[in-house]
This record gives sequence, C-alpha cells and structure tokens, in this order.
Amino acid sequence: MPFTHQVTARFFHVDRAGIIFFGRIFEYCHIVFEEMLAQVFERVAPTFEEHDFGMPIVHCEADFKRPMNMEDRLNISVEVSQLSERSITFEYTVLGQKGDVRATAQIKHAFVRLSTFESCGPPEILTNGLRQLDLIQ
Amino acid sequence: MPFTHQVTARFFHVDRAGIIFFGRIFEYCHIVFEEMLAQVFERVAPTFEEHDFGMPIVHCEADFKRPMNMEDRLNISVEVSQLSERSITFEYTVLGQKGDVRATAQIKHAFVRLSTFESCGPPEILTNGLRQLDLIQ
Amino acid sequence: MPFTHQVTARFFHVDRAGIIFFGRIFEYCHIVFEEMLAQVFERVAPTFEEHDFGMPIVHCEADFKRPMNMEDRLNISVEVSQLSERSITFEYTVLGQKGDVRATAQIKHAFVRLSTFESCGPPEILTNGLRQLDLIQ
Amino acid sequence: MPFTHQVTARFFHVDRAGIIFFGRIFEYCHIVFEEMLAQVFERVAPTFEEHDFGMPIVHCEADFKRPMNMEDRLNISVEVSQLSERSITFEYTVLGQKGDVRATAQIKHAFVRLSTFESCGPPEILTNGLRQLDLIQ
Repeated sequence: MPFTHQVTARFFHVDRAGIIFFGRIFEYCHIVFEEMLAQVFERVAPTFEEHDFGMPIVHCEADFKRPMNMEDRLNISVEVSQLSERSITFEYTVLGQKGDVRATAQIKHAFVRLSTFESCGPPEILTNGLRQLDLIQ
Repeated sequence: MPFTHQVTARFFHVDRAGIIFFGRIFEYCHIVFEEMLAQVFERVAPTFEEHDFGMPIVHCEADFKRPMNMEDRLNISVEVSQLSERSITFEYTVLGQKGDVRATAQIKHAFVRLSTFESCGPPEILTNGLRQLDLIQ
Repeated sequence: MPFTHQVTARFFHVDRAGIIFFGRIFEYCHIVFEEMLAQVFERVAPTFEEHDFGMPIVHCEADFKRPMNMEDRLNISVEVSQLSERSITFEYTVLGQKGDVRATAQIKHAFVRLSTFESCGPPEILTNGLRQLDLIQ
Repeated sequence: MPFTHQVTARFFHVDRAGIIFFGRIFEYCHIVFEEMLAQVFERVAPTFEEHDFGMPIVHCEADFKRPMNMEDRLNISVEVSQLSERSITFEYTVLGQKGDVRATAQIKHAFVRLSTFESCGPPEILTNGLRQLDLIQ
C-alpha cells in the first residue's frame, strides 16, 4: 500500500513543446517524499536536526513512458523498494488522471550523522514512521 | 562603470512560447551578483560566515522590454543605485547581443548579523570590495 | 473577495539559511494564477490558443516582510489591482499559517494576439472569467 | 575525446546543507548538451525545427560520489556511450577543480519527428555534428 500525493505540472515546468523538463521529475518525487515525512513527523527539518541524521541521495534514475503536460494532475505513489543496513531506496510511480503511467523513478538514499557526516544506519525514528505508513514491515 | 557578466538562456528556462519565464530574471541577476562577489572575495559563502553577515532581500522588481529566448547570450551589468546605512540596492540591465535592452531589475538588500539576525549596516569587507570594483566611491 | 490557494515551501526552494530564494515568490504567485484560471477554464493552455491571446508580463515586484521557510503552508490570495485597456495587474498577498504577511507581489500583464504578437486589449473570455470569480465587476 | 564545459554551482541551487539539490545535476548536464550542440549548429532550436526532429528523454540516471557545493566550478564532460537505430545515450562526468569525480550521469534520448511525434532514427545533421566533435566515428 504505497503513499500517494498529487502534484500539478506548472507552466514554468514545461518546455517549448509544452512537456515538462525531464529533470523536474525529481522535484515532483521529492514533493511526495516531503509529504510522506510530514505525515509522520510534526515538522520534518527539525526532526532531522534533533535526531542528527541526513539522507543524502547516492543514486537516482527515471524512465519516461508518456509526456507530462502543463496542467496535468499527476498522482504520484511511493513505496520502499529496498531497505538495507546502510541505505533505503524509494520507488515512485507517476500516473495521469486516467491511471496511465507517465514515468517511474527510483531514488536511493544513504544515511549520515548530520554532525559528523559519518555514514550510519537508518534511524529508528524514520523506520518507525515508515512502519506507521505501512511502507515497511 | 558597472560590473558585467554573461548569462545564457537555457532550454529549461523557457516556456511554451520559447520565452524565458519572467521569474528567471532574478536567478540571472543573482548569478551576476555572485560573480561580482567572487571577484573580490576568494570564496563568497565563507566570507559571509567569517564576517557574520547576511544580505536578505527586502524588495525586488523588474521591467521586461523585449523577450529573452532560449540560446540568447545575455550581457548583464550591475551597478549600485543606492547605498544607505541599512540597505543597498543593485540595478541590473540585461542586454541582448546587439546591445538591445531586454529587461532591467532592481534588488534591495538589508543587512543582518547571521548569528543573531539583528539588523546592521553594510560591513566594511563588502563596501571595500565594491569600492575595489569601482561600484561605489 | 480575493481568490486564495495554498502553496507549500519545499526543500529544494530554500537556501543555506533554510529560507526560500526570493525569486521563487514569482513561481508561487504563478501557481495561484494558474489555479485561478483553472477555476474558470476547463483547460488553461488550450483556452489561450483557441482565443488567440497571451499575457506577457511587463512588470513584477515583490516586498519581503518575514522569511518563508521549508514546510511552510502559505496561503496566497490574489486580487485585480488594476485593469486598463491594455493591461491587467494582479496583487498577491502571501500569508503564513497564523495570518502573518510574509510577502506581497504585483504582476502586470500586457495582452497580445498569440498569432501575431500584436498588442491587444483584455479578451472577453478572461474578463468574463474574472467576473465569475468576483475579481472584477 | 569528450566535449567539456564548465558549470558553476549557484546559491539558489543548494539546500540547507549548502549542497546542490540532486535533481539539479540534470540541468547541469543539459547545459553541457546545449553547449555541445551550439558548437556544431549556428542556432540549436531552429535546427531542430528545420530538420523536423526532437530528442525526448526516455531514461536518465545519476550517481553521486562527492557533494557539489555553492561556488564550485564544475568541469563536466560528455561522451556518446551508445548510438543505436532508435536512440542515443550520453554519459556525463562531473569533476571538481582538483579532478575529483563528483557525479556521473547517463541520459538516453529517443528520436521523433517534431511534426508527427513518430519515432525515427538519428538525423544526419546530428550524427554529422557529433562526428565533427569526435564524439562518434
């Protein structure tokens, strides 16, 4: 059961052909990531600071199936596709209003202590939150 | 004698009509602001931190005279139009390759101590730098 | 009675100080402009094409009163502050969750025929729409 | 022998930690792609229109090795890693000033007729241009 959020393609996201610039997909996914965290944390930024962790992105990729156009109301869902001792990967699916897949994306995060930038494992506050959303077991 | 820097209008800056989204003008101006500071400070961000000051923007405006299109090599010049005890205003002029004015913009900064966010005057390190560039007397 | 829409400040909108980059305000206002048009037109982009008009921006300005931070849910309202034979100016007010004014902005549009780029007056389809929203009389 | 272009990380590209937002990498790569095309075509956009082709992106990915910070002068090189009858893939390498790899990215384009959006092969004007730059044989 993925977490889902709607993102609207804006005038200033599209190119001369009226199609969103491909790199925007990662902004759209990040909006969904932020909304997902906002569901479980009262405030996202202070949670990272208080619990001394960051989630730098080490890999990302996307496949584009059908164009996303200005004004499209895109339903974007996110699932956890991999959780290891050192990283977590989220898988995003972007659907148009008729349920047609426009794009998919994977974003892999490592974990670091914000205070030292040392690598660490996924903090409990995060895994608890993802469990609460049924995104991990 | 203003400071001048060239900015190129990119594919992902333009809209369906092939014209740059108006809000991009402030990114272009900020690029010129950063290059101007890079001329006088070895590293810009550490200079602000070491000298404990920030320059939050309190007002900005722009007038658009002619469209800026993808691929345009824009020559943007910056001058100090006002320097007071509490603020500084920069005036930017955006020219096309033939010297035609595409847009003008004004950006007014206040000064604050980064550590306390208290209002302050223009720090000497900045006024010295602007004097070095002949932007103030 | 202005038209109002909520915009959330995102992680990728903010700078090192955690405050949104000032130029983003014009993206936020444009989102509200798009949602306003979406209320009265079934599809915005095709409406402009079918009725052969564009609304190029000739002037914009903004005043920043209080910082906008990541995660802020901003309530942005828009009113028509001026409607003439050749242009229309929208006034935007950005409020925080407690009703505190974060910023105000004015954006002035001219009107052109899309097919010829010739100057024209406000098309009836637009003034009818704004009347429907009680934004003009 | 790749084509190389320098891109500077800007204030409005970085996040609270002073590190560029990961999605920006695809804007940086596209700048290099545009400069590469500008080397062989007098004007890029009109070339696509006259020769009736587009290069929609069907896949992209990036690996992040070391943070890119505000003010970094990044040297980005591009090579053709794959050219087939229906697509072309460019490989980008982002280096810091000391030659350290910050990130790599791959961007795969399909080819379409702009007038019909039908799939097509790589147009001669493009392959000739890439040959001129020694990017293909």
